[in-house]
Amino acid sequence: MSLTFREARARDLPAIVALLADDDLGRNRENPDDLARYSLILGRIEGDVRNSIVVAEQEAAVVGVFQITFITGLSRQGATRALVEGVRVAAAQRGQGIGAAMMRHAVELARARGCALVQLTSDKSRTRAHDFYARLGFKMSHEGFKLDP
Amino acid sequence: MSLTFREARARDLPAIVALLADDDLGRNRENPDDLARYSLILGRIEGDVRNSIVVAEQEAAVVGVFQITFITGLSRQGATRALVEGVRVAAAQRGQGIGAAMMRHAVELARARGCALVQLTSDKSRTRAHDFYARLGFKMSHEGFKLDP
Repeated sequence: MSLTFREARARDLPAIVALLADDDLGRNRENPDDLARYSLILGRIEGDVRNSIVVAEQEAAVVGVFQITFITGLSRQGATRALVEGVRVAAAQRGQGIGAAMMRHAVELARARGCALVQLTSDKSRTRAHDFYARLGFKMSHEGFKLDP
Repeated sequence: MSLTFREARARDLPAIVALLADDDLGRNRENPDDLARYSLILGRIEGDVRNSIVVAEQEAAVVGVFQITFITGLSRQGATRALVEGVRVAAAQRGQGIGAAMMRHAVELARARGCALVQLTSDKSRTRAHDFYARLGFKMSHEGFKLDP
Protein backbone atom coordinates (compact mmCIF):
# COMPACT_ATOMS: atom_id res chain seq x y z
CA MET A 1 0.00 0.00 0.00
CA SER A 2 1.44 3.34 -0.97
CA LEU A 3 2.35 5.86 1.68
CA THR A 4 2.35 9.58 0.97
CA PHE A 5 3.60 12.51 3.03
CA ARG A 6 2.20 16.01 3.23
CA GLU A 7 1.85 18.91 5.65
CA ALA A 8 -0.98 18.50 8.13
CA ARG A 9 -4.24 20.35 7.50
CA ALA A 10 -6.90 21.36 10.01
CA ARG A 11 -9.13 18.45 9.05
CA ASP A 12 -6.35 16.03 10.02
CA LEU A 13 -6.35 17.23 13.63
CA PRO A 14 -8.76 14.62 15.10
CA ALA A 15 -6.58 11.85 13.65
CA ILE A 16 -3.34 13.54 14.72
CA VAL A 17 -4.47 14.16 18.28
CA ALA A 18 -5.72 10.57 18.49
CA LEU A 19 -2.22 9.41 17.44
CA LEU A 20 -0.57 11.67 20.02
CA ALA A 21 -2.90 10.40 22.75
CA ASP A 22 -2.58 6.70 21.83
CA ASP A 23 0.81 6.38 23.48
CA ASP A 24 2.07 5.30 26.89
CA LEU A 25 3.50 8.71 27.65
CA GLY A 26 1.04 10.81 25.62
CA ARG A 27 -2.10 9.33 27.15
CA ASN A 28 -2.12 11.71 30.10
CA ARG A 29 -0.70 14.68 28.23
CA GLU A 30 -3.32 15.20 25.53
CA ASN A 31 -6.94 16.37 25.48
CA PRO A 32 -8.65 15.15 22.29
CA ASP A 33 -11.86 16.97 23.31
CA ASP A 34 -10.23 20.38 22.94
CA LEU A 35 -9.78 20.52 19.17
CA ALA A 36 -10.01 24.31 19.19
CA ARG A 37 -6.77 24.45 21.15
CA TYR A 38 -4.94 22.20 18.68
CA SER A 39 -6.43 24.19 15.77
CA LEU A 40 -5.02 27.45 17.13
CA ILE A 41 -1.62 25.87 17.52
CA LEU A 42 -1.70 24.36 14.01
CA GLY A 43 -2.46 27.83 12.70
CA ARG A 44 0.63 29.20 14.45
CA ILE A 45 2.77 26.38 13.06
CA GLU A 46 1.42 27.04 9.54
CA GLY A 47 2.59 30.63 9.97
CA ASP A 48 6.17 29.56 10.68
CA VAL A 49 8.19 28.60 7.59
CA ARG A 50 10.70 26.74 9.77
CA ASN A 51 8.21 24.43 11.49
CA SER A 52 5.95 21.73 10.04
CA ILE A 53 3.65 18.95 11.11
CA VAL A 54 3.95 16.16 8.53
CA VAL A 55 1.41 13.37 8.20
CA ALA A 56 1.84 9.99 6.56
CA GLU A 57 -1.26 9.00 4.63
CA GLN A 58 -2.28 5.55 3.43
CA GLU A 59 -5.56 4.95 1.60
CA ALA A 60 -6.78 8.43 2.56
CA ALA A 61 -6.19 7.75 6.28
CA VAL A 62 -3.61 9.46 8.50
CA VAL A 63 -1.42 6.62 9.78
CA GLY A 64 1.51 8.59 11.16
CA VAL A 65 2.69 12.03 12.16
CA PHE A 66 5.86 13.85 13.07
CA GLN A 67 7.01 17.41 13.59
CA ILE A 68 10.12 18.81 11.95
CA THR A 69 11.68 22.17 12.82
CA PHE A 70 14.63 23.78 11.01
CA ILE A 71 16.89 25.65 13.41
CA THR A 72 19.67 27.93 12.28
CA GLY A 73 22.52 28.39 14.74
CA LEU A 74 26.03 29.82 14.86
CA SER A 75 27.79 26.65 15.97
CA ARG A 76 29.28 24.21 13.44
CA GLN A 77 30.00 27.18 11.14
CA GLY A 78 26.42 28.34 11.09
CA ALA A 79 24.81 24.97 10.57
CA THR A 80 21.09 24.47 10.26
CA ARG A 81 19.79 21.47 12.16
CA ALA A 82 16.48 19.65 11.79
CA LEU A 83 14.77 18.74 15.05
CA VAL A 84 12.24 15.91 14.87
CA GLU A 85 9.56 15.68 17.58
CA GLY A 86 6.32 13.82 18.22
CA VAL A 87 6.88 10.79 16.00
CA ARG A 88 3.80 8.52 16.09
CA VAL A 89 2.51 5.62 13.98
CA ALA A 90 -1.05 4.31 14.36
CA ALA A 91 -1.06 1.21 16.58
CA ALA A 92 -2.93 -0.87 13.98
CA GLN A 93 -0.38 -0.02 11.28
CA ARG A 94 2.84 -0.74 13.18
CA GLY A 95 5.37 -3.27 11.90
CA GLN A 96 4.89 -2.32 8.23
CA GLY A 97 7.85 0.04 7.98
CA ILE A 98 5.76 3.20 8.15
CA GLY A 99 7.91 4.69 10.91
CA ALA A 100 11.10 4.01 8.96
CA ALA A 101 9.61 5.58 5.82
CA MET A 102 8.57 8.61 7.88
CA MET A 103 12.08 9.06 9.24
CA ARG A 104 13.60 8.63 5.77
CA HIS A 105 11.24 11.37 4.62
CA ALA A 106 12.32 13.57 7.54
CA VAL A 107 15.96 13.07 6.55
CA GLU A 108 15.09 13.99 2.93
CA LEU A 109 13.38 17.17 4.11
CA ALA A 110 16.47 18.01 6.20
CA ARG A 111 18.75 17.40 3.22
CA ALA A 112 16.57 19.58 0.98
CA ARG A 113 16.95 22.43 3.49
CA GLY A 114 20.73 21.97 3.65
CA CYS A 115 20.75 20.74 7.23
CA ALA A 116 24.05 19.53 8.67
CA LEU A 117 22.32 17.47 11.33
CA VAL A 118 19.04 15.73 12.11
CA GLN A 119 18.39 15.35 15.82
CA LEU A 120 15.72 14.02 18.12
CA THR A 121 15.34 12.81 21.67
CA SER A 122 13.50 9.76 22.90
CA ASP A 123 12.40 9.05 26.46
CA LYS A 124 14.82 6.60 28.12
CA SER A 125 11.88 4.23 28.71
CA ARG A 126 11.28 3.83 24.95
CA THR A 127 13.98 1.21 24.37
CA ARG A 128 12.32 -0.21 21.23
CA ALA A 129 12.33 3.27 19.71
CA HIS A 130 16.06 3.53 20.47
CA ASP A 131 16.76 0.36 18.48
CA PHE A 132 14.55 1.71 15.70
CA TYR A 133 16.51 4.97 15.43
CA ALA A 134 19.83 3.14 15.61
CA ARG A 135 18.78 0.92 12.69
CA LEU A 136 18.06 4.09 10.69
CA GLY A 137 21.62 5.28 11.26
CA PHE A 138 21.06 7.65 14.17
CA LYS A 139 23.84 7.71 16.77
CA MET A 140 22.71 7.71 20.42
CA SER A 141 25.47 10.18 21.20
CA HIS A 142 23.80 12.61 23.60
CA GLU A 143 21.96 12.78 26.89
CA GLY A 144 18.63 14.55 26.65
CA PHE A 145 17.67 16.89 29.50
CA LYS A 146 14.23 18.35 30.21
CA LEU A 147 13.10 20.91 32.76
CA ASP A 148 9.63 22.18 33.61
CA PRO A 149 10.12 25.95 33.82
CA MET B 1 31.06 41.36 39.20
CA SER B 2 27.70 41.93 37.59
CA LEU B 3 26.60 39.78 34.70
CA THR B 4 24.16 41.02 32.09
CA PHE B 5 22.36 39.22 29.29
CA ARG B 6 21.38 40.53 25.89
CA GLU B 7 20.87 39.37 22.31
CA ALA B 8 24.09 38.99 20.36
CA ARG B 9 25.09 41.75 17.93
CA ALA B 10 27.37 41.50 14.89
CA ARG B 11 30.28 43.03 16.79
CA ASP B 12 30.10 40.16 19.33
CA LEU B 13 30.81 37.56 16.65
CA PRO B 14 34.61 37.32 17.08
CA ALA B 15 34.11 36.68 20.80
CA ILE B 16 31.25 34.25 20.23
CA VAL B 17 33.08 32.23 17.59
CA ALA B 18 36.15 32.11 19.85
CA LEU B 19 33.92 30.67 22.60
CA LEU B 20 32.43 28.10 20.24
CA ALA B 21 35.90 27.06 19.04
CA ASP B 22 37.48 26.92 22.52
CA ASP B 23 35.91 23.57 23.31
CA ASP B 24 36.98 19.94 23.02
CA LEU B 25 34.24 19.14 20.51
CA GLY B 26 33.97 22.57 18.89
CA ARG B 27 37.67 22.94 18.09
CA ASN B 28 37.45 21.06 14.80
CA ARG B 29 33.97 22.25 13.92
CA GLU B 30 34.46 26.02 13.77
CA ASN B 31 36.33 28.39 11.46
CA PRO B 32 37.02 31.68 13.28
CA ASP B 33 38.64 33.09 10.10
CA ASP B 34 35.34 33.07 8.23
CA LEU B 35 33.47 35.82 10.09
CA ALA B 36 31.42 36.64 6.99
CA ARG B 37 29.80 33.23 7.21
CA TYR B 38 28.85 33.68 10.88
CA SER B 39 27.61 37.22 10.10
CA LEU B 40 25.23 35.93 7.43
CA ILE B 41 23.89 33.34 9.83
CA LEU B 42 23.47 35.88 12.65
CA GLY B 43 21.45 38.00 10.24
CA ARG B 44 19.14 35.06 9.54
CA ILE B 45 18.73 34.39 13.25
CA GLU B 46 17.93 38.07 13.88
CA GLY B 47 15.17 37.72 11.29
CA ASP B 48 13.52 34.86 13.19
CA VAL B 49 11.45 35.93 16.20
CA ARG B 50 11.60 32.40 17.61
CA ASN B 51 15.38 32.07 17.65
CA SER B 52 18.00 34.03 19.59
CA ILE B 53 21.69 34.02 20.38
CA VAL B 54 22.11 35.35 23.92
CA VAL B 55 25.43 36.59 25.28
CA ALA B 56 26.46 36.99 28.91
CA GLU B 57 28.50 40.15 29.41
CA GLN B 58 30.77 41.03 32.31
CA GLU B 59 32.75 44.28 32.39
CA ALA B 60 31.96 44.89 28.71
CA ALA B 61 33.38 41.50 27.69
CA VAL B 62 31.41 38.56 26.30
CA VAL B 63 32.01 35.72 28.78
CA GLY B 64 29.30 33.29 27.69
CA VAL B 65 26.85 32.45 24.96
CA PHE B 66 23.87 30.22 24.34
CA GLN B 67 21.17 29.82 21.73
CA ILE B 68 17.50 29.54 22.61
CA THR B 69 14.76 28.56 20.16
CA PHE B 70 11.03 28.56 20.89
CA ILE B 71 9.26 25.70 19.16
CA THR B 72 5.49 25.39 18.97
CA GLY B 73 4.16 21.88 18.56
CA LEU B 74 0.87 19.99 18.74
CA SER B 75 1.91 17.50 21.39
CA ARG B 76 1.29 18.17 25.11
CA GLN B 77 -1.85 20.11 24.15
CA GLY B 78 0.00 22.45 21.85
CA ALA B 79 2.91 23.17 24.14
CA THR B 80 5.73 25.50 23.22
CA ARG B 81 9.15 24.22 24.19
CA ALA B 82 12.42 26.10 24.51
CA LEU B 83 15.44 24.36 23.00
CA VAL B 84 18.84 25.45 24.33
CA GLU B 85 21.92 24.84 22.19
CA GLY B 86 25.57 25.89 22.08
CA VAL B 87 26.09 26.75 25.75
CA ARG B 88 29.62 28.06 26.29
CA VAL B 89 31.43 29.92 29.10
CA ALA B 90 34.87 31.47 28.55
CA ALA B 91 37.56 29.15 29.95
CA ALA B 92 39.10 31.90 32.10
CA GLN B 93 35.74 32.69 33.70
CA ARG B 94 34.61 29.18 34.62
CA GLY B 95 33.78 28.22 38.20
CA GLN B 96 32.15 31.58 39.01
CA GLY B 97 28.58 30.48 38.43
CA ILE B 98 28.27 32.17 35.03
CA GLY B 99 26.93 29.01 33.38
CA ALA B 100 24.31 28.55 36.09
CA ALA B 101 23.24 32.20 35.77
CA MET B 102 23.00 31.75 32.00
CA MET B 103 20.77 28.71 32.36
CA ARG B 104 18.59 30.47 34.94
CA HIS B 105 18.22 33.26 32.41
CA ALA B 106 17.29 30.74 29.70
CA VAL B 107 14.61 29.31 31.99
CA GLU B 108 13.29 32.84 32.65
CA LEU B 109 13.10 33.50 28.91
CA ALA B 110 11.22 30.22 28.46
CA ARG B 111 8.80 31.11 31.25
CA ALA B 112 8.19 34.55 29.74
CA ARG B 113 7.23 32.90 26.44
CA GLY B 114 4.87 30.48 28.19
CA CYS B 115 6.98 27.39 27.48
CA ALA B 116 5.90 24.11 29.03
CA LEU B 117 9.38 22.64 28.72
CA VAL B 118 13.03 23.61 28.44
CA GLN B 119 15.15 21.00 26.72
CA LEU B 120 18.72 20.49 25.63
CA THR B 121 21.08 17.70 24.76
CA SER B 122 24.66 17.24 25.86
CA ASP B 123 27.23 14.93 24.29
CA LYS B 124 27.60 11.76 26.39
CA SER B 125 31.30 12.56 26.82
CA ARG B 126 30.51 15.80 28.69
CA THR B 127 29.89 14.20 32.07
CA ARG B 128 30.69 17.36 34.04
CA ALA B 129 28.05 19.21 32.04
CA HIS B 130 25.54 16.49 32.93
CA ASP B 131 26.13 17.04 36.64
CA PHE B 132 25.83 20.79 36.05
CA TYR B 133 22.42 20.46 34.35
CA ALA B 134 21.20 18.03 37.01
CA ARG B 135 22.11 20.54 39.73
CA LEU B 136 19.99 23.13 37.92
CA GLY B 137 16.99 20.80 38.08
CA PHE B 138 17.13 19.29 34.61
CA LYS B 139 16.13 15.62 34.42
CA MET B 140 18.35 13.41 32.24
CA SER B 141 15.22 11.64 30.99
CA HIS B 142 15.93 11.19 27.29
CA GLU B 143 18.41 9.69 24.88
CA GLY B 144 19.66 12.16 22.28
CA PHE B 145 20.07 10.92 18.70
CA LYS B 146 21.94 12.64 15.88
CA LEU B 147 22.25 11.78 12.22
CA ASP B 148 24.30 13.37 9.46
CA PRO B 149 21.81 13.63 6.59
